[in-house]
Amino acid sequence: MSDRTGPRPGGRSARVQAAVHRAVRELQQERDRAALTVPVIATRAGVTPSTIYRRWGDLAGLLADVAVERMRPDQVPADTGSFRGDVLAWLTQYADEMASAPGRAMLRDVLGTEAYVGACKCDGFLREHVESLRERARARGEQPPPVSLLVERIVAPLLYGILFTNETPTAELLEALFDQMMLDHKHR
Amino acid sequence: MSDRTGPRPGGRSARVQAAVHRAVRELQQERDRAALTVPVIATRAGVTPSTIYRRWGDLAGLLADVAVERMRPDQVPADTGSFRGDVLAWLTQYADEMASAPGRAMLRDVLGTEAYVGACKCDGFLREHVESLRERARARGEQPPPVSLLVERIVAPLLYGILFTNETPTAELLEALFDQMMLDHKHR
Repeated sequence: MSDRTGPRPGGRSARVQAAVHRAVRELQQERDRAALTVPVIATRAGVTPSTIYRRWGDLAGLLADVAVERMRPDQVPADTGSFRGDVLAWLTQYADEMASAPGRAMLRDVLGTEAYVGACKCDGFLREHVESLRERARARGEQPPPVSLLVERIVAPLLYGILFTNETPTAELLEALFDQMMLDHKHR
Repeated sequence: MSDRTGPRPGGRSARVQAAVHRAVRELQQERDRAALTVPVIATRAGVTPSTIYRRWGDLAGLLADVAVERMRPDQVPADTGSFRGDVLAWLTQYADEMASAPGRAMLRDVLGTEAYVGACKCDGFLREHVESLRERARARGEQPPPVSLLVERIVAPLLYGILFTNETPTAELLEALFDQMMLDHKHR
């Protein structure tokens, strides 16, 4: 699913979005999830509830949007000198974040909308991220596996573990998944 | 995570649970998710809202419980004569159900509670189901792979596809995942 183009930076629409997102993040710090309602958020952001309904549809849509923004990678990943090192450094941090209480709340929000639009955006961020690690690997002369194989063999079991077994994948498990994937990639 | 023991069948507690579950299922047919509230459900079930809060904590907990009950496999799987046939018959139906609109709504409900208790129960049902297919396979003289490998290599990418890319895994994809898993299982 393609990423929708966001509002023009600095425009009125972008300012409304920033204010509403900020209000949600503040209120999430201050109170229980059950106490978050569209009117409460609108009051804090200084907009009308109908502005929120028009733009985000409902509370679940707004929460998913805020969670997705937090999941967008905000920095160029560290160069560890190898594709294996780069991927494991990123995935270890990703697993820790997603398995934490705030990470789980983000995942719930992201998966909380009808068509999983937020979840699809997360998948997009993740694939872009892996692609940038692959480009770097190729520049070093490595032969990284396709993005789809890495998602299928490491990201999918990592998220299944967090969502369906309530376990935090260990660094050892991630290493084992990576090494088995590379072995199979070479033999295909 | 272990499955909590349910109420004694036929007891007062079991009758309350059945009435509340039935009320939720009826109301889900009749109206929007946003219109489902604990007081509305309590009225339909003929119990007080505090009965529901005491037993299920909140609306999300109740919806997760109802969704989990629907995901419990309700029949002995068909015997197709081989482990491959049995697994693919089950997974093709499972993927179709989970990717449908009601299936997606169930997954959302199941993943909607704080500690993912409902999701852990689903993982338990699924592993029991695979275990019963493995026992049948061993009785035939086959050497089925461990449950954990099947979950990691087929179930996890299947659910990742549904939740994060909004795609329905095809029968061809499931076959390819199964055959690759068996190949790697033999070479380990």
